Amino acid sequence: MNLTPRFSLRTGPRIKEITVTPIAVVDPPLLNAAGLHAPYALRTIVELVTDDGISGISEIPGNSDIDAALEASKPLLIGRDVFQLSEIRQVLVDHFGKDTAAQRGDAPWDQRKMVHIFSSIEVACLDIIGKVTGRPVVDLLGGKMRDRVPFSAYLFYKYEGAGGKLAFDIDPNAQGWAAARQASALNPAEIVAQAQAMCAEFGFQSIKLKGGVFEPRQEVDAMFALYEAFGPNVPLRVDPNALWKVETAIQYGREMEPILEYLEDPVRGQAAMAEVRKAIKTPLATNMCTTSFEDIPTSIAIGSEDIILSDHHFWGGLRSSMTLSGICETFGRGLSMHSNSHLGISLAAMVHLGAALPQVPYALDTHYPWQSDEVIVGGRFTFEEGSVLVPQEPGLGVELDRDALAALHQNYLECGLKKRDDEPEMQKKQPGWKFQAVRW
Amino acid sequence: MNLTPRFSLRTGPRIKEITVTPIAVVDPPLLNAAGLHAPYALRTIVELVTDDGISGISEIPGNSDIDAALEASKPLLIGRDVFQLSEIRQVLVDHFGKDTAAQRGDAPWDQRKMVHIFSSIEVACLDIIGKVTGRPVVDLLGGKMRDRVPFSAYLFYKYEGAGGKLAFDIDPNAQGWAAARQASALNPAEIVAQAQAMCAEFGFQSIKLKGGVFEPRQEVDAMFALYEAFGPNVPLRVDPNALWKVETAIQYGREMEPILEYLEDPVRGQAAMAEVRKAIKTPLATNMCTTSFEDIPTSIAIGSEDIILSDHHFWGGLRSSMTLSGICETFGRGLSMHSNSHLGISLAAMVHLGAALPQVPYALDTHYPWQSDEVIVGGRFTFEEGSVLVPQEPGLGVELDRDALAALHQNYLECGLKKRDDEPEMQKKQPGWKFQAVRW
Repeated sequence: MNLTPRFSLRTGPRIKEITVTPIAVVDPPLLNAAGLHAPYALRTIVELVTDDGISGISEIPGNSDIDAALEASKPLLIGRDVFQLSEIRQVLVDHFGKDTAAQRGDAPWDQRKMVHIFSSIEVACLDIIGKVTGRPVVDLLGGKMRDRVPFSAYLFYKYEGAGGKLAFDIDPNAQGWAAARQASALNPAEIVAQAQAMCAEFGFQSIKLKGGVFEPRQEVDAMFALYEAFGPNVPLRVDPNALWKVETAIQYGREMEPILEYLEDPVRGQAAMAEVRKAIKTPLATNMCTTSFEDIPTSIAIGSEDIILSDHHFWGGLRSSMTLSGICETFGRGLSMHSNSHLGISLAAMVHLGAALPQVPYALDTHYPWQSDEVIVGGRFTFEEGSVLVPQEPGLGVELDRDALAALHQNYLECGLKKRDDEPEMQKKQPGWKFQAVRW
Repeated sequence: MNLTPRFSLRTGPRIKEITVTPIAVVDPPLLNAAGLHAPYALRTIVELVTDDGISGISEIPGNSDIDAALEASKPLLIGRDVFQLSEIRQVLVDHFGKDTAAQRGDAPWDQRKMVHIFSSIEVACLDIIGKVTGRPVVDLLGGKMRDRVPFSAYLFYKYEGAGGKLAFDIDPNAQGWAAARQASALNPAEIVAQAQAMCAEFGFQSIKLKGGVFEPRQEVDAMFALYEAFGPNVPLRVDPNALWKVETAIQYGREMEPILEYLEDPVRGQAAMAEVRKAIKTPLATNMCTTSFEDIPTSIAIGSEDIILSDHHFWGGLRSSMTLSGICETFGRGLSMHSNSHLGISLAAMVHLGAALPQVPYALDTHYPWQSDEVIVGGRFTFEEGSVLVPQEPGLGVELDRDALAALHQNYLECGLKKRDDEPEMQKKQPGWKFQAVRW
C-alpha cells in the first residue's frame, strides 16, 4: 500500500501580506493602581493574507512602538510558511532580541515588544492553519477538553461615565448592565451593585475585584460586602496590583482567608510574594511578579505563587501558553488567565486556549463586559452562565468586520493616544496624582 | 467577507481499527549493566485505521503486558477523533492511572504502561493528522528547525555474534560494518575498532560508549583510547548505567573531564547525581535518574543533571517531549535523546521530533546501526555524515511493509520472548550472574 499519491505534500500557505491596524475602542473610566483608563483603550488588529488568499487575524494590546516593530518585521515574515512557527519565532528573536525583565516595568499591564509581536503572528498563523485544515484552533493545541470556557465577573472601581466621546456623559435611559456600566463605583455598596448587574447580565459564577485603588480597608470591606451579598458558593478574588506592603498583605490576607478563592499580586516582586505566601493560607496568583519564562525558575525556587495568570499576548502565543500549562502542571502550580480591555478576536483566542488546557481550575479573567465595540462579523460574543461556547468553525472562528475596523481605526486617529498610560488620565481627575509602585 | 463556505469544518477522522503487532528483530549480543541483549529485541507496531481508511503507525518497545493493555484500551479509543489528543490521553489516564516512579524500576530501560500506550496512540494519530493535512509530523510540532538530525555512534561491549537465529554464528565473508557488527568488543582496542567501523559506515561525528559492563578502569581506558584514536574534535560520552558509586564517579569523572562532552547516569538516583555534579566539571546527562515529569521538580531543586535524555516512548509522545523541551529551556537544562533497539518507525518519529526541537545541542542516541531488520517500505534509513534527513512526506513519512511485518511477527511467535530481560541472557554466558543496582 503506497499512500503517497493519496496524501500529497502541501507546502505553504505562505505569508504574502501583513496589515497592522491600530484601533481605539470605547472604554469606561476604570480605576486601577496605575491610574485611570482613558476614554479609549488601544488595540492592534493584525491580518495576514497568504499567497493563496487566506486571511488569518489576531488582536493584541495597542502600542505605537509595537505597531512600528510589526511594520519593521514584515520583510522578515513575508514569504514564510505559516506552519513554520518555531522558525518564525527564531527569526523575530534574532532580529528584536529577547524581551528583558526590565522592559516589563511596574504597570499592571505589559508592553514588551517580542512577546506581543510573536503572539500576534502566531495566532494569525494558527487561524490560517485552522482554516486550511478545516479545524478550530483548539484542535491545533491538542483538542478540546471542554465545550464552554468559564469566565469571572471582573469588577472595577470607577468614576461615573461610559468612555469614548461620551467619557463623562451618561445615558439616563440605560437599564441593567448598560446602566451599571456607566455608573460610579467608589465604595463597597456600589461595587456590590456593579457585581449584581454584571452577574445578572453575563451569569458569572465567580467574582474578581480590581483593587489597588483605595486604601486597603475599603477594598477588604468591599470583599466582605460581596461575600455577604453572594454567599459562600461564589468564589471571590481581589487584585491589589502589587501595591500593598508585605505586612499589609499579611494582615488583610489573613482577615480575608475565610472568603477568598485566591489573592492576586498583593505585593510587588517574587521575594515579597514568597514572604506573604508563607504567612497566609489563601493561594496567591500573579500576572505581575512572574510574567515570563525567565521568571519561572525563581518563582519555583522560592515558592512565590500558587497560580500563574497567563496571557497569550504576554507569554508569546497560544503554543507557549500550552508549554506554560505543562510547566505549571509539572511543578504543582495552578494556571488561569489574565486580561486587559479587549475585543472578540482576543476573546476567541483565549477561549480556544482555555478549551485546550488540560485543566481549568479557575474561571478566567476578562474585561470584555466593559467594552461595547466589536470588530468581528456578527457582533459581540454572548456569555451563558458566565461561559463562552468554544467557536467550532475552522481557525479562530471569527472574521474581521471591515466597516467596524475602519470606524475603530478612525477613533484611533482622532483620539490621539499612542500607548496606554493611566497616570495622565488620573491627573485630569486628581491633579498631581502620581503612580507609586508600593502604596500602602 | 464570509469565509465559512470556503473553509468547511471537518470532523474526525475517527479511529475505527487498532492493530497491535508484536515483532522480534535480530539483535546482537550487546552487553549492558542489566546483562546481555537477547538474540531478538522486541518491538510492538501499532496501526490505527480511521473511518475513512487512513492508516497511522507507531512503534514502541515490546512488552506483552503493554500489548495486552493496548488491546484492552481499544474500546476506549475506537470512534475518537484523532485530533482530540488531550482527551485521548485523559481517557487512558482515567482508565490505567498515571505511571508511578516505582514502576520505572532499576533497568536501563523503562517498561511503564501509560507512557508507552499513549505514545503509541499519539504518534499514530499525528501520522494520520499529517496525512490529512498534507504536512510532515515535524510541521505539527511547530515546524522544522533543521533539515537533518544528527546522531551519535553508539558503541557497545559485546560478545562475538550477530543475534537472531545466528546468535553465536558469524559470517566469515562480512566486510566493514557488517563484520564489526558481529565481532566481539571486550576491551578498549576492540571498542576503538568498533567505533572506526561504525563511523566509517554512518559518518557519525560524536561517540557514546555504553558502559556499566566492566570495572570502571577498563571503561575509562576505552574512553581514553577513543580520544587517542579520534582526537579532540569528536565529542565523547560514556554511560555507566547508574552502576558506579558516588566516589567512583567522582574519581573517574574528574579523570575524564578533559575528554568528555558529557557523562551519562554515572550513579543511581537524583541525590547521588547531584553529589557527583557538584564535584566534577563535566555535564551530567540522564535517562535513568530523571525519567518523568514527576521527577523534574526534584531534579531542578537539587540540581541533579545538566541534560535530560528524552525518549518520546517514555515521556508520553512527541507533544509531551516538546513540553519537556520547553521545561529544559526554561530551567537552563540541555535536552537530547535516549534510544533502545528500534526500527524505522521509531527512528522517523525521533527525527521529526529532533527537527522540531528549538535547539539540538547534542547528537542524539540511536541503536539503529545494530539492527538489520526493517518494517517499513523501502528498507532501512540511510545516514549521511551521521545525520538523517527529515522525511518530507505527509505524516511520519514511512509506511508499513506488510510482508516484513508478518515475518517479524513470526519471529516473535517463534522466539518465545515476552518482555525484555537481559539477566537470564547473561546467565547463559556467565552462570550465576546477577544484576546489581550499584556495582563498583
